[in-house]
Amino acid sequence: MSEQVTLTVDALGGDHAPDVVLDGVAAALSEDADLHILLCGPAESVEPFAAQHDRCKAVATTEFIAMDEHPANAVRKKKDSSIVVGCRLVKEGEAQGFFSAGSTGACLAAATLVMGRIKGVSRPALCTVIPSPAKPVVMCDVGANADCKPEYLVQFAQMATIYTEKIIGIENPKAVLLNIGEEDTKGSAFAQEAFSLLKEQVPNFVGNGEGSDILPGNYDIFVTDGFTGNVCLKTIEGTSKTLFKALKGIFYSNVFTKLGALAIKGGLKDLMAQVSPDTYGGAPLLGVKGACIVGHGSSNATAVKNGIHTTARIVRTKVSETIAETVACKSSSKQAEPGQGSADAGDR
Amino acid sequence: MSEQVTLTVDALGGDHAPDVVLDGVAAALSEDADLHILLCGPAESVEPFAAQHDRCKAVATTEFIAMDEHPANAVRKKKDSSIVVGCRLVKEGEAQGFFSAGSTGACLAAATLVMGRIKGVSRPALCTVIPSPAKPVVMCDVGANADCKPEYLVQFAQMATIYTEKIIGIENPKAVLLNIGEEDTKGSAFAQEAFSLLKEQVPNFVGNGEGSDILPGNYDIFVTDGFTGNVCLKTIEGTSKTLFKALKGIFYSNVFTKLGALAIKGGLKDLMAQVSPDTYGGAPLLGVKGACIVGHGSSNATAVKNGIHTTARIVRTKVSETIAETVACKSSSKQAEPGQGSADAGDR
Repeated sequence: MSEQVTLTVDALGGDHAPDVVLDGVAAALSEDADLHILLCGPAESVEPFAAQHDRCKAVATTEFIAMDEHPANAVRKKKDSSIVVGCRLVKEGEAQGFFSAGSTGACLAAATLVMGRIKGVSRPALCTVIPSPAKPVVMCDVGANADCKPEYLVQFAQMATIYTEKIIGIENPKAVLLNIGEEDTKGSAFAQEAFSLLKEQVPNFVGNGEGSDILPGNYDIFVTDGFTGNVCLKTIEGTSKTLFKALKGIFYSNVFTKLGALAIKGGLKDLMAQVSPDTYGGAPLLGVKGACIVGHGSSNATAVKNGIHTTARIVRTKVSETIAETVACKSSSKQAEPGQGSADAGDR
Repeated sequence: MSEQVTLTVDALGGDHAPDVVLDGVAAALSEDADLHILLCGPAESVEPFAAQHDRCKAVATTEFIAMDEHPANAVRKKKDSSIVVGCRLVKEGEAQGFFSAGSTGACLAAATLVMGRIKGVSRPALCTVIPSPAKPVVMCDVGANADCKPEYLVQFAQMATIYTEKIIGIENPKAVLLNIGEEDTKGSAFAQEAFSLLKEQVPNFVGNGEGSDILPGNYDIFVTDGFTGNVCLKTIEGTSKTLFKALKGIFYSNVFTKLGALAIKGGLKDLMAQVSPDTYGGAPLLGVKGACIVGHGSSNATAVKNGIHTTARIVRTKVSETIAETVACKSSSKQAEPGQGSADAGDR
């Protein structure tokens, strides 16, 4: 038996909400007997579902934050939205973590403003597992902080290291700075300064890594500012999608290729699953008090289920507590003004 | 008959030099009867080759700039290197363009320091064609300027537009800013300022584009700083390579998949050619006096040949002259100090 965990889930998150969210919640509940869900959303969706599912309680909310709303403004105005209520219940101790496949920006803003930053963390950062046929690769930040100071990247590396050890299960993961050359002196002024700080303060930092090192899985963790990380993540998604689409075109070009495609269909399906963002189901915002995981807007029920499992694992392995104990205390960098940062991300 | 063009070529450029370079030069000469080559490199390589080929003259050089040398320092010290001599001959009017598959940083430094910037151009920029199954996509800057001011991006957009029209053959190409969201207000402070300037000063600028828009070819030109552009380009390369490698693994997994692979082999080969950087053979440094094209270090003979053809086309279509006439005069941005910038690029 594992530890009892209560999570809030945004029933309205994602392109296919609430249906896929409810399916994902049902699957997660049936796979984890120690999981409890507070399901936030419109009464007509969440109440009948909760009535039919053990360990699920409905939390009726009346507002909705759309994908295209200004994140911080929406969070400030819509106090009874599923996202804000989900984060508030974590803040109030009713739950330990929050999952949503809704607006990334709004989730980051709500988690930062409502749950609050861990003391000593300059900027919470969005950390993602980039799915690769080689092995899982962690990148941080991928969009919470479009504007960074070099010193933020030290904490990004430290927080991503804790996540990689506890959730991905890689001991002493190798972290690199995402840069435009391997040599120590390469890169922009920002990258050069970040390099020096990382080298000085992060024991598992091994140097610079390049864009071409990501998908081959040459390193475990890529540390970067939220702008570069977000561009990079979306570039990988766009590249994979375009190549798979082109492959499909080849397969359907004539009867021989169709037969040929049959033979490799199984392997190809596995490969597509390997590069699908659904395996971990979402990206955690590291550095806030409590777990907050944001799923892809296009999440299906499996992705939602996996996202909920990942959120529960973050709670059970005490990722946030470890960040509070180690990163925040270790940090020598000047603390930022409260309530700043986050909410920069484009919708992933 | 097309216009007579003389180009300098670095016989020592690339991982497989001088053999593939000589093969590429031979092929280019035989396909273009109006092309003349000044082949720069060690006497023992270039002299026997020139003796056997019409319209090729040997220029014996005694020094070599390696891939891992500090670009600007190497260019300043090694005056008799094939890269510096190649650029100097363009400066002196003996040739109109220079091609090398050697160190990107050294080529950029040599072109900027030796050929010189076009008057009014703040920063020369490396412009590349990203090969996609959808259509060719132009990105600028991809590594000449790791540190940019937002106003540089206006000229990057203008120069890339001229290149796209003349060399890729797309009339009135749609240019976007590479950003982390589509809405006008998205992105870092840098991106937001660049957005305003581009909107104001570049008629074919249509807004923000994201990483996921690149390979699908949703826009013709992606304008960005050299750091983000270089990371992005290498990320696409790494992603394509990793996926093709994984596919190969699937094909070879058993006798059925091997048979299946046979049927789709032709289509797959075409797809790999579509995403190979060899088609255009290299990236031009736009904004210098004369043409300078840098090929990929892993260039094969076909890539070298295509790079030489692209260089000749840039000369014949007067890309640099058009930049001098339009961009430089149009520009309202403050001119930079001479001799600054460039040489930031990692080796592509």
